[in-house]
Amino acid sequence: MLPLLPEPDTTMLLDTLNIIAVSAEATTAALIANRYRMDWFGVAVIGAVAGLGGGTLRDVLLNHHPLTWVKDPWLLLLTTVFALIGAAMAARMQKLRHLFLALDAMGLVVFTVGGCNVAYELHQSMAVCVIAGMVTGCAGGVIRDVMCNVVPLLFQQELYASVSAAVACVYLYCFETLQMPQMSAVSLAMITGFLLRGLALRYNWRMPTFSAS
Amino acid sequence: MLPLLPEPDTTMLLDTLNIIAVSAEATTAALIANRYRMDWFGVAVIGAVAGLGGGTLRDVLLNHHPLTWVKDPWLLLLTTVFALIGAAMAARMQKLRHLFLALDAMGLVVFTVGGCNVAYELHQSMAVCVIAGMVTGCAGGVIRDVMCNVVPLLFQQELYASVSAAVACVYLYCFETLQMPQMSAVSLAMITGFLLRGLALRYNWRMPTFSAS
Amino acid sequence: MLPLLPEPDTTMLLDTLNIIAVSAEATTAALIANRYRMDWFGVAVIGAVAGLGGGTLRDVLLNHHPLTWVKDPWLLLLTTVFALIGAAMAARMQKLRHLFLALDAMGLVVFTVGGCNVAYELHQSMAVCVIAGMVTGCAGGVIRDVMCNVVPLLFQQELYASVSAAVACVYLYCFETLQMPQMSAVSLAMITGFLLRGLALRYNWRMPTFSAS
Repeated sequence: MLPLLPEPDTTMLLDTLNIIAVSAEATTAALIANRYRMDWFGVAVIGAVAGLGGGTLRDVLLNHHPLTWVKDPWLLLLTTVFALIGAAMAARMQKLRHLFLALDAMGLVVFTVGGCNVAYELHQSMAVCVIAGMVTGCAGGVIRDVMCNVVPLLFQQELYASVSAAVACVYLYCFETLQMPQMSAVSLAMITGFLLRGLALRYNWRMPTFSAS
Repeated sequence: MLPLLPEPDTTMLLDTLNIIAVSAEATTAALIANRYRMDWFGVAVIGAVAGLGGGTLRDVLLNHHPLTWVKDPWLLLLTTVFALIGAAMAARMQKLRHLFLALDAMGLVVFTVGGCNVAYELHQSMAVCVIAGMVTGCAGGVIRDVMCNVVPLLFQQELYASVSAAVACVYLYCFETLQMPQMSAVSLAMITGFLLRGLALRYNWRMPTFSAS
Repeated sequence: MLPLLPEPDTTMLLDTLNIIAVSAEATTAALIANRYRMDWFGVAVIGAVAGLGGGTLRDVLLNHHPLTWVKDPWLLLLTTVFALIGAAMAARMQKLRHLFLALDAMGLVVFTVGGCNVAYELHQSMAVCVIAGMVTGCAGGVIRDVMCNVVPLLFQQELYASVSAAVACVYLYCFETLQMPQMSAVSLAMITGFLLRGLALRYNWRMPTFSAS
């Protein structure tokens, strides 16, 4: 089960990636919130929800306390700062769609790997690890959209939850089944996720629906 | 407190009923999700939320871990399969309203009895047992509707939450106060629920509102 | 850390205030729900969500079990009674906006102080205490609005979440940093909250937005 060589820097890598993803999702929240002429306090709240909501829901579902932001309250400062940066950018720039989608993809992919790993370290079954990854990756955005009274992007966009599921499966397959070093498994899963999401957006890939049959 | 005769099959009965209700609610989710041209992955997500959301919320509120689907991850496979069956049916059939309402009533009634029983076995007070039953019966549908950005059926339809409350009260009264065997209490509560919901839908029964006074 | 004199009545004061706030928020819920011609059962459900939802979310996030209404189920009776009183008033009175805003401000301010104090007694960091206060003060209203499919007041109104944050900071600063008696800290924080909210509503104070820049 354990990788052959000690990997002292994987935890740090995952922590760093998590901080980047929290910042990215907080920024996307500001880009959405801005459409509603929210004041800067509302922007900060939505930023915190988008950046920390997925991990919070995962931890509540898995009874994994204390929550990350209860243990490290400076994460709340981080989401506030990045939400305000996002709002300031949104007010100045016209074409934000590409930035928004890139940041959102980063949050989706990185959160999924991190969420998977939390459940894995709690010795959950593979299916629960995949769900934990998907909840961490997708739920922050869903809560953000529900709070803004928007139909969640999850259900509108191309290959959104499916990318999260694919990332989780690649990570767990490489790390647990193939016994690859964690660093490689994380990298492979993230590359898969960015590729899939990028190609889906570029070529407008969609999952089949039933309604046309 | 204990019934006079051993009833080795009540747990199995409740488990079987729970599986049926999970499947029924997952199917209804697909019928709703289909209106929004969701892809099949979104349908599976909504199915899982509708089928397992009520029990999940109840367990989080009562601090009853691990959650059912964390303990038995195959339930996630079950909701996925039935959500896809529901979506395939929705694409082929025109008149689904009766099927939808029947499945939804089954979920409502069975989940209520099961949720009541979980709280009862945790030695909660009667009031909390009733609420646990109602949360299990109604919350999955509410989360489903909120995620789809629809006003929850709970607040639109005839005698919805009230049926859940009645089922919970009948079950607890028969089982705890009258000391009836659990099997009989479950049956009586379910019959009450189906009758009430059926009559409410058939004769358009509604609770009084205040706005007309 | 402890105040110099024993204050046997502070717990009772906070409990009493909490009961008043639960009743006030349950009443506001009825005033909103009434617009949708909900039946009286739906009104009672929304009343319970608005009155107890904030504290419930706080306790779930802080893993503080059992929840208040699980320990004291009569709180559910309280929210039901006040929700029905609110609905009856709404049907008879034309101009409810001032009553609604006053009751809502009371819930906001009192819940914030109470929520802060719960986290404080769990020995959380100051930042988490502030968030706990804000979640308790604001979340009930947000869940109420999301369930009614309305854009949450939190994001529309003048100085809403900001008032909650200010109340939490004043309370913690007076109680923890200045070591004031709890009763005085509670009073000062509440006066600050009512003043800020009242002035914000009276003079239409708003936080700056980014969209106009």
